[in-house]
Amino acid sequence: MADHIKGIAASNGVAIAHAFHLEQPDLNIQKGTVSDVAEESSRFREALDKAKRELETIRKKTFVQQGEENAEIFSAHLLVLEDPELIYAVESKIKNDGVNASYALQEVSAMYIQMFEDMDNAYMRERAADIRDVSQRVLLHLAGVENTSLAAIDKEVIIISHDLTPSDTAQLDRQYTLGFVTNIGGRTSHSAIMARSLEIPAVVGTQNITSIIQNGDLLIVDGAHGEVVVNPDESTLNIYRERQQKLAADKAEQKKLVSEPSITADGKRVELAANIGTPDDMRGVLENGAEGIGLYRTEFLYMGRDSFPGEEEQFEAYRTVVEQMDGAPIVIRTLDIGGDKKLPYLDLPEELNPFLGFRALRLCLEKTDMFRTQLRALLRASHYGNLKIMFPMVATLEEFRAAKGLVEEEKKRLNAEGVSFDSQVSVGIMVEIPSTAVAAASFAKEVDFFSIGTNDLVQYTLAADRMSERVSHLYQPYHPAVLRLIKNVIDASHIEGKWTGMCGEMAGEETALPLLLGMGLDEFSMSATSILPARSLMRTLSVNDARALVERALVCGTADEVKELVYAETK
Amino acid sequence: MADHIKGIAASNGVAIAHAFHLEQPDLNIQKGTVSDVAEESSRFREALDKAKRELETIRKKTFVQQGEENAEIFSAHLLVLEDPELIYAVESKIKNDGVNASYALQEVSAMYIQMFEDMDNAYMRERAADIRDVSQRVLLHLAGVENTSLAAIDKEVIIISHDLTPSDTAQLDRQYTLGFVTNIGGRTSHSAIMARSLEIPAVVGTQNITSIIQNGDLLIVDGAHGEVVVNPDESTLNIYRERQQKLAADKAEQKKLVSEPSITADGKRVELAANIGTPDDMRGVLENGAEGIGLYRTEFLYMGRDSFPGEEEQFEAYRTVVEQMDGAPIVIRTLDIGGDKKLPYLDLPEELNPFLGFRALRLCLEKTDMFRTQLRALLRASHYGNLKIMFPMVATLEEFRAAKGLVEEEKKRLNAEGVSFDSQVSVGIMVEIPSTAVAAASFAKEVDFFSIGTNDLVQYTLAADRMSERVSHLYQPYHPAVLRLIKNVIDASHIEGKWTGMCGEMAGEETALPLLLGMGLDEFSMSATSILPARSLMRTLSVNDARALVERALVCGTADEVKELVYAETK
Repeated sequence: MADHIKGIAASNGVAIAHAFHLEQPDLNIQKGTVSDVAEESSRFREALDKAKRELETIRKKTFVQQGEENAEIFSAHLLVLEDPELIYAVESKIKNDGVNASYALQEVSAMYIQMFEDMDNAYMRERAADIRDVSQRVLLHLAGVENTSLAAIDKEVIIISHDLTPSDTAQLDRQYTLGFVTNIGGRTSHSAIMARSLEIPAVVGTQNITSIIQNGDLLIVDGAHGEVVVNPDESTLNIYRERQQKLAADKAEQKKLVSEPSITADGKRVELAANIGTPDDMRGVLENGAEGIGLYRTEFLYMGRDSFPGEEEQFEAYRTVVEQMDGAPIVIRTLDIGGDKKLPYLDLPEELNPFLGFRALRLCLEKTDMFRTQLRALLRASHYGNLKIMFPMVATLEEFRAAKGLVEEEKKRLNAEGVSFDSQVSVGIMVEIPSTAVAAASFAKEVDFFSIGTNDLVQYTLAADRMSERVSHLYQPYHPAVLRLIKNVIDASHIEGKWTGMCGEMAGEETALPLLLGMGLDEFSMSATSILPARSLMRTLSVNDARALVERALVCGTADEVKELVYAETK
Repeated sequence: MADHIKGIAASNGVAIAHAFHLEQPDLNIQKGTVSDVAEESSRFREALDKAKRELETIRKKTFVQQGEENAEIFSAHLLVLEDPELIYAVESKIKNDGVNASYALQEVSAMYIQMFEDMDNAYMRERAADIRDVSQRVLLHLAGVENTSLAAIDKEVIIISHDLTPSDTAQLDRQYTLGFVTNIGGRTSHSAIMARSLEIPAVVGTQNITSIIQNGDLLIVDGAHGEVVVNPDESTLNIYRERQQKLAADKAEQKKLVSEPSITADGKRVELAANIGTPDDMRGVLENGAEGIGLYRTEFLYMGRDSFPGEEEQFEAYRTVVEQMDGAPIVIRTLDIGGDKKLPYLDLPEELNPFLGFRALRLCLEKTDMFRTQLRALLRASHYGNLKIMFPMVATLEEFRAAKGLVEEEKKRLNAEGVSFDSQVSVGIMVEIPSTAVAAASFAKEVDFFSIGTNDLVQYTLAADRMSERVSHLYQPYHPAVLRLIKNVIDASHIEGKWTGMCGEMAGEETALPLLLGMGLDEFSMSATSILPARSLMRTLSVNDARALVERALVCGTADEVKELVYAETK
């Protein structure tokens, strides 16, 4: 008789394989005394340095394979390694108590971990996990031990673990790891986010999977329903094998649409574009038949290095992508750093509310040398294809005018230097701040296009931090106010003969597509893997029905009413 | 020849008096060794306890005399005293190095102060000032020294100081302190905020006033222009004396309006109401002729104690004010705690972006026992006058419905218990989140009234933390998008036959009054001292002109254009 274990649905899909317990090497750290405390301190510093170099490598690899957001986790780890309070506390302990570095680090990090774990907040508890992960890495270096358990996997397995640290996840071999199940974690924990981006079925937060499952047990991981079946009987196995086949068949069916246009049942053509983080993401873009790139994040160029990237280097990175797209549109967003995203060589203020702080264009307009370098590189790359420049986090018309003014100045300089660029290059903005959505009519007169960034727009409109578990029920993309703002932006752009895209998560959601189509959205930009399902759905929708749906959605009182309406009308 | 020293205008008004240098007692702390480290640790704990009790007293006094916001500074100080990291670091130092507590504390706090001062952010630098202020307090207790220099002032003076700590400001004798000037600080530093609420003319950020001025120099402090005149000649003195007289005459003229109605030049009646923080603020309300209370904050009931206030205690606090207002309307806001405002007996999550987090109504809807107690006390007090209940931080209709549902349940219980209350008591909401402003039409069908909280509405609409210096240029109450949202709320309420008030800072601003009048705002709620100037201005405005002004303001592109328009049309 098969056991069913419930957990939290972390990443869709069905995986069937034998269980493999992932175990952390037990370092068995003992308190010892050292005679030469200076020597022990420098051993500690060396281990920190090794961990730092290792993390830089992992971060780069993660960036290339999984994109910016996952790589950010390792930036957070690097910050832990550079935390003066932690280092000071460990070194004081070595010096004053004359203890070995491993023991000192373990004591100090245990104190921090306890402190963060006691906090009643998912984000802070993740900090505890970060510190645990980073300390373990440094402790391994201090002990001269290599972490090999993941590398030892050489057949298809489902990984069972108390937790999966970001470091673990970065080392997962996708060929052999069919799925994973953990005791702890939630839908927004690092491991869950990574699983989704790797498209590995996963269930987290099962409480006690590690004590229930034996190595070698046959498991079914049902990621969509947050369920794990242990040693299933043949009939259960068959049910899930059929589901696997159905999912694969749907995928194969969608795959046929790769070279088809994105067109509704009644013949309206829309643009389905991809969001990318590095030039390496181009493979996914081309494989999934994107008709453009609606968001090319440029942060990767600035990360994992000691100084700002130069104009040449940026120019090459932009040109590469522009040329590959062969005339299809590419919207490149200027640097969106600051707030919670940091660069080691850029001294940014600590802020009480980083999401409401000094970031993105706000920062670029003060650091104009850095900004001009990027603008010149973008202008030069515009010569090689259909490049469009987009500014993030615009809240006022003054900001747009100032940024546009810099573009114009750099155009003049390039002209004077005889350098080629597209003199008609489009310059648009992200609409992710409520003021800009409300005042879209004023902006529409001056910008060439809008791209709605729903991730931030929703969080500001509802005043609900999208990273906070405690207010996640208020992070409502389908709140009628959000829909009204989106419609206001689209309408304002059309009145001035401009176009509007969307590059937030919402643009790829099944529930959102009919609403956005009905509002007249021109370009839908999403992760590359969402494009074919969206194209498939688009072919079943009609513009007239979608418009009628929008009329009814806008007068709904709540987000739930909106979602129920869409389900009822499109299912 | 008189010297003119420029600084930052911190608090309006003109003060003329002799300089008095405020000096911190020099504790001259030396490193010493202690034989009994346990004894020294307990001496440290005792000094912490004394400082804690002292701060509790100062906080209460400040709350009563200066209101919630200034009292919050001492809550921050209390948090420093309870910081486990700081205490742990000091005690480790005592234990491991065998040094005296004063030296250990001075070393540790110096490290923290350095760390925070190095941060490129006004908020974090204020943290450094907090730690300095708190450490000094604990060091004084360790040394058994009393801080007497402020208490020694017995004649009218202008205080000269490097900085004025919140502790200093709380001890200022308003009878003798005519003004103050400091080397450091900005317009939003604690000392500047305190000066404005005490109505003491002040100039901050002069860099080096302490090294220029001698004790006994005659000074003119021109708070409005951020200027200090040193040893002025007779003609200069006369100019400033005339200015003082003019300011006093304006004030006397306005004083005559205390019992007059708030009415425009063309006869439209509006309500000018006051914001209050405790029942003690009622004196100011009555002295300034407020026609109602547009915002009665209830946080004071919950602060400076060890457990939640009971129903009886709350009932008495609400009834006292309701009865004093003698039938005039009083809008009481339910508990607005959380985010950056904490209570020692309420365990709240640490948050990455507290302004976008778990606070106010969001918290009350989870802690329903606490919330029901407040609602019962409010309902019972409604029997004694014109009380209205208002919920803060409403983002969705579900939240309002849930809160209103609790009111209805408590009404039924009171009915069953035979307790009197106003069965028609109005229940409204603050509009301070963009979603609610945008979807005001839906809310207007269900609420009894709106009160626009511009402080938060502006910060969310522009995505600019109102506490952050780095984005202060984006905190724009006159952004056309903010005006559009305000108008949308007022219009939506009127369509449903409801009314709209405003209880943010904007409601009392000279530039805002014509715009708000033109939009049809029904109730203007401000600090009591702004009421008479507002009433005086209102008598010069006409509704028709104001409406025409609004039409033109709404199509402006930027906040500056709006402000220039208002200046041009009303001056």
